Amino acid sequence: MSGIADVARQAGVSKSTASRALSGSGYVSDETRDRVTRAAEMLGYVPSTNAQSLSTGRTQNIGVVMPYVNRWFFAEVLEGIQAALLERGLDLTLYDAKPGSDTRERIFESFLTRKRFDGLIAVGLEPEENELDSMLALGKPVVNVVGNHERTSVVTLDDPLTARRATEHLIELGHRRIAFLGAGSRTRWPHVESSRLDGYMQSMADAGLADEATHTESELTLPAGYDAAVELLSDTRTRPTAIVAACDEVAIGAIIAARRLGLHVPAALSVIGIDDHEFAEMFALTTFRQVPREQGAAAVELLMRQIQDPTLAPVIQRLKPRLVVRSSTGPLRSDRAAADATV
Amino acid sequence: MSGIADVARQAGVSKSTASRALSGSGYVSDETRDRVTRAAEMLGYVPSTNAQSLSTGRTQNIGVVMPYVNRWFFAEVLEGIQAALLERGLDLTLYDAKPGSDTRERIFESFLTRKRFDGLIAVGLEPEENELDSMLALGKPVVNVVGNHERTSVVTLDDPLTARRATEHLIELGHRRIAFLGAGSRTRWPHVESSRLDGYMQSMADAGLADEATHTESELTLPAGYDAAVELLSDTRTRPTAIVAACDEVAIGAIIAARRLGLHVPAALSVIGIDDHEFAEMFALTTFRQVPREQGAAAVELLMRQIQDPTLAPVIQRLKPRLVVRSSTGPLRSDRAAADATV
Repeated sequence: MSGIADVARQAGVSKSTASRALSGSGYVSDETRDRVTRAAEMLGYVPSTNAQSLSTGRTQNIGVVMPYVNRWFFAEVLEGIQAALLERGLDLTLYDAKPGSDTRERIFESFLTRKRFDGLIAVGLEPEENELDSMLALGKPVVNVVGNHERTSVVTLDDPLTARRATEHLIELGHRRIAFLGAGSRTRWPHVESSRLDGYMQSMADAGLADEATHTESELTLPAGYDAAVELLSDTRTRPTAIVAACDEVAIGAIIAARRLGLHVPAALSVIGIDDHEFAEMFALTTFRQVPREQGAAAVELLMRQIQDPTLAPVIQRLKPRLVVRSSTGPLRSDRAAADATV
Repeated sequence: MSGIADVARQAGVSKSTASRALSGSGYVSDETRDRVTRAAEMLGYVPSTNAQSLSTGRTQNIGVVMPYVNRWFFAEVLEGIQAALLERGLDLTLYDAKPGSDTRERIFESFLTRKRFDGLIAVGLEPEENELDSMLALGKPVVNVVGNHERTSVVTLDDPLTARRATEHLIELGHRRIAFLGAGSRTRWPHVESSRLDGYMQSMADAGLADEATHTESELTLPAGYDAAVELLSDTRTRPTAIVAACDEVAIGAIIAARRLGLHVPAALSVIGIDDHEFAEMFALTTFRQVPREQGAAAVELLMRQIQDPTLAPVIQRLKPRLVVRSSTGPLRSDRAAADATV
């Protein structure tokens, strides 16, 4: 069986460089890492993780805590994290921490305290203060994806900015009766939802449309968006001409509801989302694009830096979204023209 | 800090029972496990996993290999596995093995060989023979979810039976021009797709409709189902009156396509799926229900039994689906009546 020395010789690097490249700890260039990885594969080199753990005090394993795996955003971030870890030869241990569940409590009180990982990535968890305390008390680097605090590094979409720009897109098209769909009294993602709602409110106020601002509650899922939109759109007296949806799943639910009610999109109703979900194209949805897979990769990158140098100060990466115009938004039309449009 | 003896005393059981209950190895009743878990939580007992590993030779960790996490079926199975493992105090290490990818090769050749788990669950992987060899060579128990072979335990929907029953449902409603949508020449799930197609073919032949059988290729996703259905339904001369979709995502794509083309479902087109996907209700889809979450839990149960007794012979659990009738299927109507139906 080949040893690390054989791999180093094959790749033309020193043993310590080969070791750094394969363990993911310490800096090596992408090109060197590729060369060493290829050499290791060619020689069938398998590092002894127990020996590695003993010598480095590291587990070669990263913990990932998230409230859902069966929702688009979470699953995509997870794929991004997984790919970035596999590239570095690291394992991924998953903890599924549903909000308010018993298991969530057990994860924080018992599973995480085993410290079988070198660092922790929390995705869309929006941890409570005591949960954040628990995570930090482990003494391992922590990175959050989504959220807004200063105690750990964070990778997040700039939520208020994104909602502001989505609202402005509709205002520029001449709409005034613009409703916000999503966020609720029992929100699952207090920060994401409230900061997107705030962004919408801000833009409406800036445009002198504060009196027109309305907010219909919806959980951030496609079926919930559908139900909420059916209710919002059924009353012709209060029906908006445009909707800012808190996310694409809600926006797509609204488009399906509009079609069911015989409302042409965009002639009778414009809809804009946030995400660029995998279904966005099929529904011709205008949206602000975020790439959760890249957020997962960015979180791994930040975590690696902190594992190498635990004294680094927390970093906030606030991502700017990009507008993708499809055909679910259009200029405000007179009531007559909108009513004449066929579905 | 509390030890296992304190937990045992608090729960009123022996030390070895408390240890079995917390480690998930060896039989204890659900009631006893609950009592011990509660006692451990109350006392803030945290098992030392290193000590546990040394004494039992076990890692208290289960490996899960799947080709996708961002698809409904896979994410739901994963949630089921995760919940069942957390209940038993076991960690889950995830390996995302996309078909034909470099990382898939590395997972089999390098990651799995570290053997940092007590057993392996492969979900929807439909492993190649050499991959199955690699998994079995690890000398750890393996359970597959989905598939059809005799070398490991398998939990799977009875695919041919399900497709037969879906086809028969449409035949009983009077349909003859029934098309199968899904499966293709470059299939990702050769067993699932081909066995469902076979079931459809079989039923058509049994009903004397072999000449009417047609098969349109589609990947098993909603957008792919939409595209394939647009093509299938656009030619009025060959348009079927009913579709058996290989899964709900394809079925829902077909319903969206039908609406776009102005075809009323079910007056002009009946559609039946397999899954009972989270969107099925919103699209009033008639479908055969499977519960992937329960399949995940069943796989954990089978794996635990094999970890306790590695001499057990492999078991195949073939699950029977249940028909859920909604309004996407209806009796064959005359061309005249179907054409008059409004969308």
